[in-house]
Amino acid sequence: MPGDNEREGSIIKDLVKRTRSCRRFQEEPVSEGVLRSLIDLARLSASAANLQPLKYIISCKRHTNDIIFPQLMWAGYLEEWEGPLEEERPSAYIIVLGDRQISESFGCDHGIASQNILLGATSMGLGCCIIGSVNREGLAESMKIPDRFEILHVIALGKPGEKVVIEEMNQDGDIRYWRDGSGIHHVPKRALDDIMVRCGNI
Amino acid sequence: MPGDNEREGSIIKDLVKRTRSCRRFQEEPVSEGVLRSLIDLARLSASAANLQPLKYIISCKRHTNDIIFPQLMWAGYLEEWEGPLEEERPSAYIIVLGDRQISESFGCDHGIASQNILLGATSMGLGCCIIGSVNREGLAESMKIPDRFEILHVIALGKPGEKVVIEEMNQDGDIRYWRDGSGIHHVPKRALDDIMVRCGNI
Repeated sequence: MPGDNEREGSIIKDLVKRTRSCRRFQEEPVSEGVLRSLIDLARLSASAANLQPLKYIISCKRHTNDIIFPQLMWAGYLEEWEGPLEEERPSAYIIVLGDRQISESFGCDHGIASQNILLGATSMGLGCCIIGSVNREGLAESMKIPDRFEILHVIALGKPGEKVVIEEMNQDGDIRYWRDGSGIHHVPKRALDDIMVRCGNI
Repeated sequence: MPGDNEREGSIIKDLVKRTRSCRRFQEEPVSEGVLRSLIDLARLSASAANLQPLKYIISCKRHTNDIIFPQLMWAGYLEEWEGPLEEERPSAYIIVLGDRQISESFGCDHGIASQNILLGATSMGLGCCIIGSVNREGLAESMKIPDRFEILHVIALGKPGEKVVIEEMNQDGDIRYWRDGSGIHHVPKRALDDIMVRCGNI
């Protein structure tokens, strides 16, 4: 049904555009049920050799959120910003783990799975940020995560408290995002023609 | 608008379910324009530190498709199947590269970006397979891919020529997919409760 395809295609394109890294949130809870439904999307992802070595810890209560937050580093390019204020912090987290009893390497499985989570969250009106810059030792210790799990990254979630817009990248190729005077976060992206490679045979 | 969210949520869930690895295709061309629109979805993905080190080579002509195909390994668990017959082969490929002039490591950026491509392709009625088992040296040489690029994986695309269904995993935990007598491909997935970890603090 081409009509259906067209509708789906424009919805997915719109979702992808709106799925931006969000780092400031509103104080509104995210339920365990919502987090489980997002992990159910991750569960259905492709996985190298179908091994499915990813596991997930969820947190949506004050007690565990407060343990996780200090182990995360926020927005390296915003030098004068120390991270979200207490009232801007994420309402929930998904810690994405690799289970070493299943595989020693996780390829890009956690990228595939996390993008399902992010798109699903955007469709629910939530904002997310995949945070790779994590104090892994501190998080494992404070959250009592068993040694068998490798911490791959942490996804922060909540009701968005900031606006994020995509910009065309300048000629100078500067990839650093910035925040303007009214608090809008701008993210430069490379142009399509700059990421297409024509090699000898094409 | 909750109504809109609900509709989007059910569309994304349905798309994720239908986005299965497809390894047999119909003989129908995929245009360069379609491939470019899919890479445009990849372009808008989150990227670690916004570095955007991913680059892409597309192929949708017989000449280059024939160069790429023999460098790919197909469906390790189907021991008696040597890969798609000539008339079942993909109509197009996207070679996902990491540009070492931008970064030495690519994290899971290629997973995030490729899932956007796969979901977009599904919405267009196409089937895809991310193939990580690639003769990288052979592919780089035969496609004359400059040394500066690391081959991360190859996405095969085309009009689906097989049916793929998700199954609940058996108690024995066997993750191998199988093909039944009528050619349907079955993929066991772990149950949601089996991928949720409860650690000491939750």
